[in-house]
Amino acid sequence: MSDDDPIGAAVRLLARLPGVGEKSARRMAYSLLASGPSFAKALGEAVATLPERVRTCSICGTYTGRETCAICSDTQRTEEILCVVARPWDVDALERAGTFRGRYHVLHTLLDPLSGVGPEQFPLDPLMRRVSEGRTREVIVATPPTVEGEATALFLAESLRPLGISLTRIASGVPHGGDLEYVDPITLGRALEGRRGL
Amino acid sequence: MSDDDPIGAAVRLLARLPGVGEKSARRMAYSLLASGPSFAKALGEAVATLPERVRTCSICGTYTGRETCAICSDTQRTEEILCVVARPWDVDALERAGTFRGRYHVLHTLLDPLSGVGPEQFPLDPLMRRVSEGRTREVIVATPPTVEGEATALFLAESLRPLGISLTRIASGVPHGGDLEYVDPITLGRALEGRRGL
Repeated sequence: MSDDDPIGAAVRLLARLPGVGEKSARRMAYSLLASGPSFAKALGEAVATLPERVRTCSICGTYTGRETCAICSDTQRTEEILCVVARPWDVDALERAGTFRGRYHVLHTLLDPLSGVGPEQFPLDPLMRRVSEGRTREVIVATPPTVEGEATALFLAESLRPLGISLTRIASGVPHGGDLEYVDPITLGRALEGRRGL
Repeated sequence: MSDDDPIGAAVRLLARLPGVGEKSARRMAYSLLASGPSFAKALGEAVATLPERVRTCSICGTYTGRETCAICSDTQRTEEILCVVARPWDVDALERAGTFRGRYHVLHTLLDPLSGVGPEQFPLDPLMRRVSEGRTREVIVATPPTVEGEATALFLAESLRPLGISLTRIASGVPHGGDLEYVDPITLGRALEGRRGL
């Protein structure tokens, strides 16, 4: 750590955070100086110790500070519907929507043979075990509507079909508030394809 | 620090940084988890110790890790021109412009009687002493073109005039690349007022 330029040293590290450029990193450093040592100490400690304090839930695989996450520990939520997502932050996004009252399963990866995750490397077993041993009646595949997300959804559908449960895929279409004029053709195609009766 | 929700605890602290909302704070926390413990430790320590490692330069008052800053220690820069700014980050901004080769003086405040900084509270003495005892021939007042910045500029002009040095003010006008259509009327008025011969 540089004695000559402690701000510059902090700025270089802050600028490695996502969405933070050199200019906003500098603003952050100055605001740390303005808000004083106690906030800087609290933030610094939270940042430094984050990786060692975060674990993955032993049931669903999302990030948590405990053995099992708050969602898996919530007995009010039904075990009959299991929502499969790619990443822990997808759980946050779906929870913000506030309508889903089932359980989650976090894959931590998508099927992506070009990046070395083929069917052999894909973590299918934990999901298969969970669905076959548990009370799951429906699996909602909520991987993103990207090439890898769709490939994963197809792979999961094939793999889970023998278990005789209901398999669904989240809808893809024009986002709420979206103007058709500015929506890409693939999304518009999907919105048409997924049309429902009025 | 919460054992139940270490990510939430870090997110709440990160979201107190300027320009960081709950969503980008969460992205930062996840990226800290993805990039692993060594980066998180380095960033955390830089943040935690920043206030105690940063001092104000004994000559100009800007932030530095040493007794005097790099600019005040640079003998290649002329002592004849002194640029007075409100904040340490204004020094950075002017240095990025790359054309000024004189010295700086950081006020750390502007004249703002409504917020309790009247002529009595304003830190005028260090500047007066520096100008009267040194080799300064010109003072450029580079306080921002805001109400407080202009009031400070007038106050400094009155205070420094008896010292018989040259007093100048940075230009205010249409920014480089700015479209006249989108420039506010006060700025346009200033651009007209400050017009120069072609």
